[in-house]
Amino acid sequence: MSIGVFDSGIGGLTVFKSISENFPEANIYYIGDTARVPYGNKSAETIIRYSLELSNFLIKNFNVDLLVIACNSASSYAFETVKKYTNIPVIDVITAGVLNAISKTKNKKIGVIGTQATIRSKSYEKKIKDIGKDYQVFSKACPLFVPLVEEGRIKGNITRLIIKDYLDDIVNEGIDTLILGCTHYPLLKDEIKNLYPDLNIVDSTDIIPQFIKNQNINLKENGERRIFITDESPSFYVLKDLLIPDLDIEKVELSEICTL
Amino acid sequence: MSIGVFDSGIGGLTVFKSISENFPEANIYYIGDTARVPYGNKSAETIIRYSLELSNFLIKNFNVDLLVIACNSASSYAFETVKKYTNIPVIDVITAGVLNAISKTKNKKIGVIGTQATIRSKSYEKKIKDIGKDYQVFSKACPLFVPLVEEGRIKGNITRLIIKDYLDDIVNEGIDTLILGCTHYPLLKDEIKNLYPDLNIVDSTDIIPQFIKNQNINLKENGERRIFITDESPSFYVLKDLLIPDLDIEKVELSEICTL
Repeated sequence: MSIGVFDSGIGGLTVFKSISENFPEANIYYIGDTARVPYGNKSAETIIRYSLELSNFLIKNFNVDLLVIACNSASSYAFETVKKYTNIPVIDVITAGVLNAISKTKNKKIGVIGTQATIRSKSYEKKIKDIGKDYQVFSKACPLFVPLVEEGRIKGNITRLIIKDYLDDIVNEGIDTLILGCTHYPLLKDEIKNLYPDLNIVDSTDIIPQFIKNQNINLKENGERRIFITDESPSFYVLKDLLIPDLDIEKVELSEICTL
Repeated sequence: MSIGVFDSGIGGLTVFKSISENFPEANIYYIGDTARVPYGNKSAETIIRYSLELSNFLIKNFNVDLLVIACNSASSYAFETVKKYTNIPVIDVITAGVLNAISKTKNKKIGVIGTQATIRSKSYEKKIKDIGKDYQVFSKACPLFVPLVEEGRIKGNITRLIIKDYLDDIVNEGIDTLILGCTHYPLLKDEIKNLYPDLNIVDSTDIIPQFIKNQNINLKENGERRIFITDESPSFYVLKDLLIPDLDIEKVELSEICTL
């Protein structure tokens, strides 16, 4: 049995890497839509269409048994539609993050950071409030974090100043738990932890493997790994080299993906 | 007669605004490819295809007499191809910027800043060296500048620190002239001028109107303005409100654009 992972771009490699280490025998296929990245500044309609196209690619070509939406913007807008149009289990980073945060918070004050699209969608907030109306959610869009990570600036003075500029407000509200609502952000986790050592950090790379285990799918295969991107972007290689230096990348034409 | 302006997204509105003010009677049509922005991290092949698609849109729908490529990444990779496949004059921001810098520099040391794609293409450097081998060019990619501008952070401490982090090196090389090689960067010009008051700044919003005048085309029409985007992005409205608050925006479907 096999797992398909898709993302708007390269951030989802953090999730791919974590799944890969946790399920060495599974076949795992990844597609990052680098020709149309980022999704975070696109409309809901466009994000849904792109997400269905990527799901189709993974199902048609590799007959995957489980889909992981490793992109918060896509999880925010397209999870329900992808679940409806595919007949396989779909795990999204939003649901996983919310359940994990609920299990960690003591004072029921949860912070959520993400791209503008993720925060605007209020998808984390809605899911948390569905579980309990007494939870308080403090959200903040952090649009500079993705370009910081893609430039490899995961440490240093400027990065710390930008983190503080975004996070001081919501930390001062008294949150005890912070959801990293974007797949790029785990690479900033060390600096965030240094600045705010008392926060519980919810990181999709830790929790997605646990959600996959909960599906009780037999994932024993021959451990095949294939990674596709829709365009050769230079920033892809910065993150690829940080995360999965030994794997090859294949390019797939956008015309093969653009089916909807 | 009419002018068509295209850009990967919304940065080109700085150029649109400047042309609009300089040629009030011309008909001017703008398309920003917000569904696929940014081009700066895409491959040359993809940038060329997208640029031809945008040119086709403007020529087929509005029969424009002059095309302005208001995107440095597109100018870097697609100018020659667009010129070859259209039969109208094409003005690109690279050639305009180079000629202006040459006229301004006294010590023949020119700095160029832009996106990763623009800097990697060495298009400014090659054009400058074609004019004179004794010019020295110091280039620097500044990938955080676009997200800074799109967040509206055109002033302030973090913005100044990031500007210094990118520019101190090339300024210390002794450049007397700096080309702002990205259409978003004019919005950072005030802070750059504050930090480096002695530099000559080359800004496409100043120079493109002059290049249009040099074409000696009769542009007297009824002053129609139409602005198209391929996707409704929230950051579009930040820049639109900064630059052209009174104009309406029309959305065009990507399927109408994707013709190649």
